Amino acid sequence: MSMINRSWRLAARPQGMVKDSDFSWHEEAVPETLLPGQILVETLYLSVDPTQRMWAEADSYLPAVRIGEVMRSLGLGRVVRSNAPGFEPGDLVSGLVGWQSHPVLTTEGLNKLPPGTPPETALSLFGLTGLTAYFGLLDVGRPKAGETVVVSGAAGATGNAVGQIAKIKGCRVVGIAGGPEKCAWLKNELGFDEVIDYRSENVGERLRELCPKGIDVYFDNVGGDILDAALANLAMRGRVVLCGAIGDYNKGEQPQGPRNYLSLLVKRGRMEGFIILDYMPRAMEAISALAQWAAEGKIKDRVEVATGLENAPATLRRLFTGANRGKQLLKVVS
Amino acid sequence: MSMINRSWRLAARPQGMVKDSDFSWHEEAVPETLLPGQILVETLYLSVDPTQRMWAEADSYLPAVRIGEVMRSLGLGRVVRSNAPGFEPGDLVSGLVGWQSHPVLTTEGLNKLPPGTPPETALSLFGLTGLTAYFGLLDVGRPKAGETVVVSGAAGATGNAVGQIAKIKGCRVVGIAGGPEKCAWLKNELGFDEVIDYRSENVGERLRELCPKGIDVYFDNVGGDILDAALANLAMRGRVVLCGAIGDYNKGEQPQGPRNYLSLLVKRGRMEGFIILDYMPRAMEAISALAQWAAEGKIKDRVEVATGLENAPATLRRLFTGANRGKQLLKVVS
Repeated sequence: MSMINRSWRLAARPQGMVKDSDFSWHEEAVPETLLPGQILVETLYLSVDPTQRMWAEADSYLPAVRIGEVMRSLGLGRVVRSNAPGFEPGDLVSGLVGWQSHPVLTTEGLNKLPPGTPPETALSLFGLTGLTAYFGLLDVGRPKAGETVVVSGAAGATGNAVGQIAKIKGCRVVGIAGGPEKCAWLKNELGFDEVIDYRSENVGERLRELCPKGIDVYFDNVGGDILDAALANLAMRGRVVLCGAIGDYNKGEQPQGPRNYLSLLVKRGRMEGFIILDYMPRAMEAISALAQWAAEGKIKDRVEVATGLENAPATLRRLFTGANRGKQLLKVVS
Repeated sequence: MSMINRSWRLAARPQGMVKDSDFSWHEEAVPETLLPGQILVETLYLSVDPTQRMWAEADSYLPAVRIGEVMRSLGLGRVVRSNAPGFEPGDLVSGLVGWQSHPVLTTEGLNKLPPGTPPETALSLFGLTGLTAYFGLLDVGRPKAGETVVVSGAAGATGNAVGQIAKIKGCRVVGIAGGPEKCAWLKNELGFDEVIDYRSENVGERLRELCPKGIDVYFDNVGGDILDAALANLAMRGRVVLCGAIGDYNKGEQPQGPRNYLSLLVKRGRMEGFIILDYMPRAMEAISALAQWAAEGKIKDRVEVATGLENAPATLRRLFTGANRGKQLLKVVS
């Protein structure tokens, strides 16, 4: 009996909210023979990230996933068979495994993880999520101790890490999230100084109250009106870090753009984007720091795990409905 | 017979295009006695700048001009009487003289100009205009030799200087201006590599053609759709320098904001504003360089001079109808 690779392939460019029908389900026998340099992997966990919506829709910092191609995704798996030097059955690897249960991959771009690595943390705090928070905040935002840092999407995977790192660096941290549960979690368990519930509060007014000297660093995960409210409350020489615009991804139209962008002029401000892939050569710097803080109990990693490859589209949707708190993973059960 | 100070005072906050009726004309006798520290100045030239529209409308990087207050303006005049040490009748001074013929001023913030200074250049290339171009381009935009620099409002006072400085620094320069005359002037007389006439050409398409590797530095004087077109054509790690948004000042509504701002994310770009007043401590650095380049014939200063204080509102309007080429001044004839 040959092994079956189950996969979701991109069937249509998503318009508005991602739908199951944007993908098609395939089951195919895994090839009997591996070419030199190839390995067969059993996927254990998939990383579920807002940027996947962008990969499916259009060319961006990576070329768009082609129609008919397996949906692109970071993930983590175990080597089943190997025709590549240095990779043995049983090794744990992480990288772009895609929405599939038994991919045949070349080893380029894959990372071998030390035996015993907890797979959840490897895809969260020590994965691209933690690195995004670390380099986006510290390298692009450059907060100084005593400054006020505001982060939106604060209960999301990147956002909660940004807030915790800002606290470690001695900043005053205001998080913006949706709903009383998330807000209570940020304030009571993660030590955010203040929280704003964008579902029940006027974000602009609350930012004015909570940041009377203005916002020194605004880490933006959402775009839209919240970005505008932050721009309107920027401190002199304030910095806006563009990490994503989850609020705009599903609108099916071009976002309106930040109407208050001229705050950057009046306040001598800076708005800057970054892509975490550029920081890969410095990954160990972040992982060392994050591991140290985690060991000292200064940073907490929260992961939510959905189960079953068949639920990949629905799990991706969770990110855009604000259902998840912390990092969203999908456990692939073979 | 006492001397008369003629002035324009702000009468109403401008809405849409600046109107004569936004200001009221006053003629008042100049006080016979000066308090200690005061000087009486005869205004010779006023600098006419887009930012004056902003000063009249609302608080920005400076508090708004109050209703009933003399309209704020940079200018240059000759000291008539002095009760301030170091200032003698006949001295040339520049600073915030306002829209008035015979202001009584304190000397704080005024600059004494060396005898014989050509007044037109003092308010243009060696004034805030030249400094704005110099520091905005070099300090905020940081172009490297060989990079592509695009400037909008290129035939305006700041824009044409930006393009010329970028050429001196070894960049490829594309100017965006309105009308064939301005475009020909930029290309044939000032040495711009390429020009785009936004009145007759599709700016986005032309930027794509003329900047196949993308825009490394975009110096924005206009905002609106042209800013959006530039963002859409940003090179990797491109920089957008926000100097002003002349296209938006008179719209009477908040600008829509740059819809393509997420280019900053995908291209790892930076959009940054600045206010030239912050650079005053480094003014001599710019003036020395500009004077050197002017002496070597590498940079040309073009000035248009309107005449008569009574024409101040109409002269300010010229900036927003695209009538001026180079620096607009108003000669105040007593």
